[in-house]
Amino acid sequence: MMNTAPGKLSFTSDYEEGAHPAILERLVQTNLMKTPGYGADAFSESAREKIRAACRAPEAEIHFLVGGTQTNATVIDALLRSWQGVLAPETGHIQSHEAGAIEFGGHRVITLPQKDGKISAADIRACCEGYRDDENRDHMVMPAMVYISQPTEYGTLYSLRELEEISGVCREFGLPLYADGARLAYALACPENDVQLPDLARLCDAFYIGGTKCGALFGEAVVFPRPGTVPHFFTIVKQHGALLAKGRIAGLQFDVLFTDDLYMKIGDRAVSAANRIRDALIRKGYTLAFPSPTNQIFVLLTRAQAAGLSEKVEMSFWENVDEDHAVLRIATSWATADEDVDALIACLGER
Amino acid sequence: MMNTAPGKLSFTSDYEEGAHPAILERLVQTNLMKTPGYGADAFSESAREKIRAACRAPEAEIHFLVGGTQTNATVIDALLRSWQGVLAPETGHIQSHEAGAIEFGGHRVITLPQKDGKISAADIRACCEGYRDDENRDHMVMPAMVYISQPTEYGTLYSLRELEEISGVCREFGLPLYADGARLAYALACPENDVQLPDLARLCDAFYIGGTKCGALFGEAVVFPRPGTVPHFFTIVKQHGALLAKGRIAGLQFDVLFTDDLYMKIGDRAVSAANRIRDALIRKGYTLAFPSPTNQIFVLLTRAQAAGLSEKVEMSFWENVDEDHAVLRIATSWATADEDVDALIACLGER
Amino acid sequence: MMNTAPGKLSFTSDYEEGAHPAILERLVQTNLMKTPGYGADAFSESAREKIRAACRAPEAEIHFLVGGTQTNATVIDALLRSWQGVLAPETGHIQSHEAGAIEFGGHRVITLPQKDGKISAADIRACCEGYRDDENRDHMVMPAMVYISQPTEYGTLYSLRELEEISGVCREFGLPLYADGARLAYALACPENDVQLPDLARLCDAFYIGGTKCGALFGEAVVFPRPGTVPHFFTIVKQHGALLAKGRIAGLQFDVLFTDDLYMKIGDRAVSAANRIRDALIRKGYTLAFPSPTNQIFVLLTRAQAAGLSEKVEMSFWENVDEDHAVLRIATSWATADEDVDALIACLGER
Amino acid sequence: MMNTAPGKLSFTSDYEEGAHPAILERLVQTNLMKTPGYGADAFSESAREKIRAACRAPEAEIHFLVGGTQTNATVIDALLRSWQGVLAPETGHIQSHEAGAIEFGGHRVITLPQKDGKISAADIRACCEGYRDDENRDHMVMPAMVYISQPTEYGTLYSLRELEEISGVCREFGLPLYADGARLAYALACPENDVQLPDLARLCDAFYIGGTKCGALFGEAVVFPRPGTVPHFFTIVKQHGALLAKGRIAGLQFDVLFTDDLYMKIGDRAVSAANRIRDALIRKGYTLAFPSPTNQIFVLLTRAQAAGLSEKVEMSFWENVDEDHAVLRIATSWATADEDVDALIACLGER
Repeated sequence: MMNTAPGKLSFTSDYEEGAHPAILERLVQTNLMKTPGYGADAFSESAREKIRAACRAPEAEIHFLVGGTQTNATVIDALLRSWQGVLAPETGHIQSHEAGAIEFGGHRVITLPQKDGKISAADIRACCEGYRDDENRDHMVMPAMVYISQPTEYGTLYSLRELEEISGVCREFGLPLYADGARLAYALACPENDVQLPDLARLCDAFYIGGTKCGALFGEAVVFPRPGTVPHFFTIVKQHGALLAKGRIAGLQFDVLFTDDLYMKIGDRAVSAANRIRDALIRKGYTLAFPSPTNQIFVLLTRAQAAGLSEKVEMSFWENVDEDHAVLRIATSWATADEDVDALIACLGER
Repeated sequence: MMNTAPGKLSFTSDYEEGAHPAILERLVQTNLMKTPGYGADAFSESAREKIRAACRAPEAEIHFLVGGTQTNATVIDALLRSWQGVLAPETGHIQSHEAGAIEFGGHRVITLPQKDGKISAADIRACCEGYRDDENRDHMVMPAMVYISQPTEYGTLYSLRELEEISGVCREFGLPLYADGARLAYALACPENDVQLPDLARLCDAFYIGGTKCGALFGEAVVFPRPGTVPHFFTIVKQHGALLAKGRIAGLQFDVLFTDDLYMKIGDRAVSAANRIRDALIRKGYTLAFPSPTNQIFVLLTRAQAAGLSEKVEMSFWENVDEDHAVLRIATSWATADEDVDALIACLGER
Repeated sequence: MMNTAPGKLSFTSDYEEGAHPAILERLVQTNLMKTPGYGADAFSESAREKIRAACRAPEAEIHFLVGGTQTNATVIDALLRSWQGVLAPETGHIQSHEAGAIEFGGHRVITLPQKDGKISAADIRACCEGYRDDENRDHMVMPAMVYISQPTEYGTLYSLRELEEISGVCREFGLPLYADGARLAYALACPENDVQLPDLARLCDAFYIGGTKCGALFGEAVVFPRPGTVPHFFTIVKQHGALLAKGRIAGLQFDVLFTDDLYMKIGDRAVSAANRIRDALIRKGYTLAFPSPTNQIFVLLTRAQAAGLSEKVEMSFWENVDEDHAVLRIATSWATADEDVDALIACLGER
Repeated sequence: MMNTAPGKLSFTSDYEEGAHPAILERLVQTNLMKTPGYGADAFSESAREKIRAACRAPEAEIHFLVGGTQTNATVIDALLRSWQGVLAPETGHIQSHEAGAIEFGGHRVITLPQKDGKISAADIRACCEGYRDDENRDHMVMPAMVYISQPTEYGTLYSLRELEEISGVCREFGLPLYADGARLAYALACPENDVQLPDLARLCDAFYIGGTKCGALFGEAVVFPRPGTVPHFFTIVKQHGALLAKGRIAGLQFDVLFTDDLYMKIGDRAVSAANRIRDALIRKGYTLAFPSPTNQIFVLLTRAQAAGLSEKVEMSFWENVDEDHAVLRIATSWATADEDVDALIACLGER
């Protein structure tokens, strides 16, 4: 088997396991019920109601898609006209690791400088003003929406104040704000986090609540807090190949995740595990590449260290820093076992 | 609940239930194993090996995607260059019910006349010769691949001889042949069928083995019988938003479906149930719209009949024929219960 | 030289010569004047005013593009959203001879049956109602605008009544109506024609006045009779690569063509020449393939006839009818010489 | 008239006038000749032969397109597959002022740092190696060709050595190299320039020889030095709406431009005029923003200076530098009059 080698630890990603047991249990229970397809089933409708309640957005339109790249490409294409582009941090997932899915839809990703994976309201403003004041703007790609992720690709968080500033400048310039919440459960589980679901619903024009990396087999819940944001979104989803025939399978998973606030708690284990690992790394003299408080830990290693540690622990390659150093990522998840954390910490030599 | 009303029969589609119990069982058993993402896991690899064996195509490249529209759009875009189009029956799914997903990728669907949902080798030849002999061909969309489905959208089957003829003309003109097998299990379960998986592998350049409608939660297995058919297909899948992060969930399902020939048998119940229903319909004087031997039954009804029957049985609207008549579809599946078939037949008055 | 062989007649197309002498004269006169680029020059503005007057559309927005395929692709893409398609006759230029330019922009051409190159209000209505009444419409390409050409690809004309009916059904269903006027001057020169520029402005949402085939070096004038029809059309033109840097060169040509009603008269010679040829063909027993009253003549010939005549006269291949017959096109233009018409008629043997 | 105000100087761009008189003269002379369309005429063929000779590339394929954005979008789309991107300086025209035309074709512009508008072989290498060595590369846009312009958007020139280095790294990594020669005549007229047409043909896989800004009414000549570089390029041009019906109008212009080496000399006047202006600016204490030796002069001005000078001389806004400063562009052309240069210099106060 090409699975994790026996006796070897894996902290490669937060989608290494299957699903939260409550999801599988419910799938088994309801397996032979008959429901209509394409999201018109009662599981999906129940999930929508629960998400609306959690977001305090009683009129929100909610659609269940399958994966993150698909969701980003579909929502962004739906919000833009052909000559418009999406502002994003240069480290945003749509720019770095989605194989040109936004461009496949005909749109440019207009990159902004980032700090710890985040962009600032000031830089968004500068870009919009620059466009507005450029006499050649009719020959240019119009900045027409903003993409952020919470947590970011570096595991960092926008504070409520930062998000309010960004939302403010977006509204001033008429740009929809869209938040990629692939790992949103890990933000919600963070003591440092002060952005709750109702804040996202209030401040964004669209966002998605990630399932794949947060305990589901797959699935992302797109939320348009205000109805009518995108007419014909169902057809756009279909055209993008993102419409699930057995929509109930996605709906049911979110129904479970939003029962008894499971989604708000499912990241707890991951964050506390990550905190233990971070503490150990710091204690042993390692350098963390980004100040992430969530379930992702980015550690700067020499090639020798990386090779040594990789013999015992599977991690993700993140990026090459220079000839001698690389950043590797350690990711915990809702399923991370305490004994695996202990074992990982035991593998960390003094630096 | 918006699910099937209590006491009401539903024969709306073959994706109303969850998954074959063996799939759920295996999901539960393996849930907390850790595997790498994106299809590089051992479940997927095992499924690939079993599919290669079933197709007698030991070098086939196999990719697991999520849904049918997505799979068609991705494979067709991968096989065509920008100025090229795909030949398809005018009733083909890519033309009728995929919301322009092929055009979203920049390609035309070039429609050919159909009979019972099928196109002929002669019409493909005529189209290719017409293009070749047209002095204005450099101003035209080039016919550059062929799309068929087995079974077709009308539930009918290409015979082995028909498929060999189509494949022959495709190879003569250099057009890849691609078969949409969304409901392939129901073809394989048909006594009338003489096209087996090794025939598809021998005669097509690409095809997919449908999971969603054939017992899986979701999932379609794309088979390129000859390796190297599409370089960088993985990246194309990613760009189309069709790459599943937890690839194992798709791989595992096909691993179960291809264990002990389950896929070859899973359609048996659907086909025998459909045959019972067809016999009853004919006996009672109804008109079948297409000579389907598979799990889909298309019945021509007056509006009054349709309304009356729909009070007791949920069916799919198929198409309006004229002001007074419509075609409705009755679909059975791997999960259809004998007592539901009995109840449906009991609902059928004499016509 | 690969130009028309000396001593050989050519009736291949209406774009074999350069431009009307008045255009060249004006180009020479004004050559060293300096003007701003991209259509912001006084020549273009003057042309716009004259076209507005000729169309009795004082608020029309007018843009000068270069060629017909480009204009069709740009206007259609501007009027549609991604999941929408354009209705067109199956013989429409966008379907037959534009190499998939509409699909390159992501849209489907939804073909309707044609008679002599024309579609009917009734068929448009049927398509829109079929979509509206189809329970699966959210899985389908939405019919969202209508493309016609005046004259059609077969040289025929919509009557004012036909155009009013088409416009009526378009407005009833909310579909913009767009007319391709590549050869509009030849319609305007026809005694049979009862559709004038103000009718087009009143009944269409967009149309273009063809220059390339009607006496200009190149250029098509897009008219949006109602301002604000397409916000940011300038940028859309730029994105399509259709924005001319020296916009004045296009503007000046239309300024000349709309001075002293030149455009309304420039087709006279072509139509009377075509009528003389048609009369001769009929007199000598030839079969005309379509009842065109404009500058294009479509004649059905046996292969032997076609070969014989082609030795003396260059014509356009149009289409193969069967193994023994083909349709060839004879086109006259604003520049056709009387003696060439005499010579052509002299070449026509009795059939 | 919105043309240059009487008594006001204009140095706005190099496309303010019509065409070189020799071009108009030839247009007039040959106006009523009949030729086939779409570039199959003798003028175009003659132009191709002369360009092949000038490039010492006897087998080069040459196509005449209309404008620069169109040419870039068509050639780049033709050279890339859907998941691939084009490397370009962050100041490249395709990134800055083409309204997303590359993304409209589905491709990303991957920006590299620039110095004076130029990119380096080292940065291309670093990008290619970074992609090659990134374990996540299959999730990324593949860098697959290189776009440069000669002269650059800042009027600067690649030296032969720089171009050889860039070409070398491109060939090492298998990336086609494409040069945008919108203003190529002004490079060829520069004493500092050591890159001649045969060098471009030897070192690039595609480039275009600009007509619009170099004395033609419009037109760009695409050169593929090695035949077969892009199969079906004619159809790709058509699909992009870039195929000129009266192809001879473009061909004839290049035929004139490549008769008696006119193209090699047409920029002389522009460069010597620009040099006089640059000398005067420097003498009077102005700051030039970029070290351009060609026909474009970029001068850094305070807002007050810019406003003052703009009252007497029309220039192009280039970019805002900060609240108090902007860069304006003064452009000369093949048609610039000596007395206008004198008058401009007289307007320049001491700084």
